[in-house]
Amino acid sequence: MEEIAGTGSDTPLAVDDIEAFKQAFRRHAAGVAAVTSVMTDGTPVGFTATSLASLAAVPPLATFNMSSVSSAWPAMTVGNYVAIHMLGPQTRHLAEKMAADHSERFVGDHWSPGPHGVPVLSDVTAWMVGRIVEVHPVHNNAVVVVQIETGALGAEDEALLYHERRYLKPGEPV
Amino acid sequence: MEEIAGTGSDTPLAVDDIEAFKQAFRRHAAGVAAVTSVMTDGTPVGFTATSLASLAAVPPLATFNMSSVSSAWPAMTVGNYVAIHMLGPQTRHLAEKMAADHSERFVGDHWSPGPHGVPVLSDVTAWMVGRIVEVHPVHNNAVVVVQIETGALGAEDEALLYHERRYLKPGEPV
Repeated sequence: MEEIAGTGSDTPLAVDDIEAFKQAFRRHAAGVAAVTSVMTDGTPVGFTATSLASLAAVPPLATFNMSSVSSAWPAMTVGNYVAIHMLGPQTRHLAEKMAADHSERFVGDHWSPGPHGVPVLSDVTAWMVGRIVEVHPVHNNAVVVVQIETGALGAEDEALLYHERRYLKPGEPV
Repeated sequence: MEEIAGTGSDTPLAVDDIEAFKQAFRRHAAGVAAVTSVMTDGTPVGFTATSLASLAAVPPLATFNMSSVSSAWPAMTVGNYVAIHMLGPQTRHLAEKMAADHSERFVGDHWSPGPHGVPVLSDVTAWMVGRIVEVHPVHNNAVVVVQIETGALGAEDEALLYHERRYLKPGEPV
């Protein structure tokens, strides 16, 4: 095995170790979702997320991680609402749109206002709107916990994956 | 679109809505990881996780979600260590082993003690050992934040995915 980091608990990790952490995560595939919200002044915000996870089914809770330098960060306050969209190969363009320059993300007819004024993206395989119940900042990032309140299933599509810096669809069972 | 839940913010979700939340998450694919740790009495614990996500690269932080009724829960204390393993099709058996009855998970020669006594699973594509820096219980579940301190890359393998209750490998680019 190739050692990627060997520091003790009190030693800051060097740049090489951080690159190695990234290499390890490149061996992990992730599902792709899009998170949207709305600022108090009505401005829609959103971003593509590869960290979406279910936390509980009863009550329905989901989590995602984000950077606190994201343009969407000011909307991530407890009590505000977000929409979480499951993407598929047919909505790969939404993943790219929500990762584009933030001034471009809501230019177009690919969304409409949904519950609580939160932008709902069109043609997704599923969307859910929920209330932010916890925000845990850690360094320049944060874990956001959302309690889902409503949503809908869209057209059937495969799941969309992000792996080794590419968008993929799921392959064969193993 | 098929409405999956239409409750207001003050209305508890009904069983049907929770089933719908699960249906939405079934349209999301996830990478598969295995998390291990060690109890204060030396007992190894672990579980298969589909919620592993990167939180930050600088410092290297990862998160996973878990049930607080898991056999591994007593080890999830701030300051204790965990190992996070990236799995692939060649280590699908580890995903199954770490999801089996908890008394069976460390019976065999598929692991050895690693840094801080934490069990390191054999033949994984990457493993990282880190210190638990935050634990956020939410209802009967928790978000765990880990700061990675060491690790290694293993043999090349594809990523392992979990989608629609099956293990898969990644497919074609889209």
